[in-house]
Amino acid sequence: MTSSMTSQRTVGVLLFEGFELLDVFGPLEAWGIHAASGGCSIVMGAEKAGAVKSAQGPRAIADYALADCPPIDVILVPGGIGTRREVTNAALLEWLARRAAEAEIVSSVCTGAALLARAGLLDGRRATSNKLSFKWVIEQGAAVEWVRQARWVEDGKFATSSGVSAGIDMTLALIARLAGAATAEQIAIRMEYEWHRDPAWDPFAKIHGLV
Amino acid sequence: MTSSMTSQRTVGVLLFEGFELLDVFGPLEAWGIHAASGGCSIVMGAEKAGAVKSAQGPRAIADYALADCPPIDVILVPGGIGTRREVTNAALLEWLARRAAEAEIVSSVCTGAALLARAGLLDGRRATSNKLSFKWVIEQGAAVEWVRQARWVEDGKFATSSGVSAGIDMTLALIARLAGAATAEQIAIRMEYEWHRDPAWDPFAKIHGLV
Repeated sequence: MTSSMTSQRTVGVLLFEGFELLDVFGPLEAWGIHAASGGCSIVMGAEKAGAVKSAQGPRAIADYALADCPPIDVILVPGGIGTRREVTNAALLEWLARRAAEAEIVSSVCTGAALLARAGLLDGRRATSNKLSFKWVIEQGAAVEWVRQARWVEDGKFATSSGVSAGIDMTLALIARLAGAATAEQIAIRMEYEWHRDPAWDPFAKIHGLV
Repeated sequence: MTSSMTSQRTVGVLLFEGFELLDVFGPLEAWGIHAASGGCSIVMGAEKAGAVKSAQGPRAIADYALADCPPIDVILVPGGIGTRREVTNAALLEWLARRAAEAEIVSSVCTGAALLARAGLLDGRRATSNKLSFKWVIEQGAAVEWVRQARWVEDGKFATSSGVSAGIDMTLALIARLAGAATAEQIAIRMEYEWHRDPAWDPFAKIHGLV
């Protein structure tokens, strides 16, 4: 008990109106199974605590306003149509930059990478994003080394995934990094999920004409 | 516009405390993309309207109390640890039986099949469920023809999927049935999801010693 408690990390999710459902809840399914065995805890944050409407309509609840969020070890930034608005939200980008500096891992799914880029966090780093909106995303970070074909990209503390379902694969890779491959494998089996272990696997780059 | 409006279906999700996150939000990502192009609308229901805590912790919002839910064409019943309690919830099972009679499609993910079974809806039908809890699920329906190895099973208006991520594959198959294979294919690409199109694909049955 003591050892799992001392190694427990806090996974913090950034919600905003128009977040993509699976960008949040795919990774959170995996982190949530990890949490159930004491591997981490989960907090949900947004500019204001309370209900946050997804891009698909259903609403989730932010437990904390961003300013009140406890320390976060693993940040998860989803994509979704709401990123088009949030890339100009100075308060949110400032929060991201400050919390990223303190975090062990900063992860994004889909167009969430645009928020990391606009916060200046990816300058000089390799990163990817979803393939349908790739052109818009790369405009948000001229100094980022954008990878056109990748399921996900890890560069230091930053992990950026391709679109929507890619967040699950990236998260399992992060859990493998933090807690070992066997733990990640057990979580994937519990999810009955055929995990893409190769970060270079990305048939969607070709479908969208990026390679 | 007229034709998409007249063919628009309502997808209704049953929430209860301890629902599995991905059982709900995997399928809702796909239905939600379909909804964005006018293919359906989504409603979230629970015994009481308001916040409902998932098995993994994060909370979603039920827009409606079950009694107030508008007519539902496609019912989605998730699994999760909360099903252990809900299999003895007579009011919920009665609601399921009544709404299932009026619905075009009744779908379950993971241990959600236990709720359909206890509502008597699967008697004499083929059905599956997640593989980790298979023994408990089949005890909930002695007259059900349980399929030990399947990603999902369709029998008439009923579609039951295996564990957690299997709900996404089942949902894409249901969208293909209702709106055509090309529509489902486009949704899978938008999700950057490698869709398992074969309902017999199920490596997890073997991992859990069911075959």
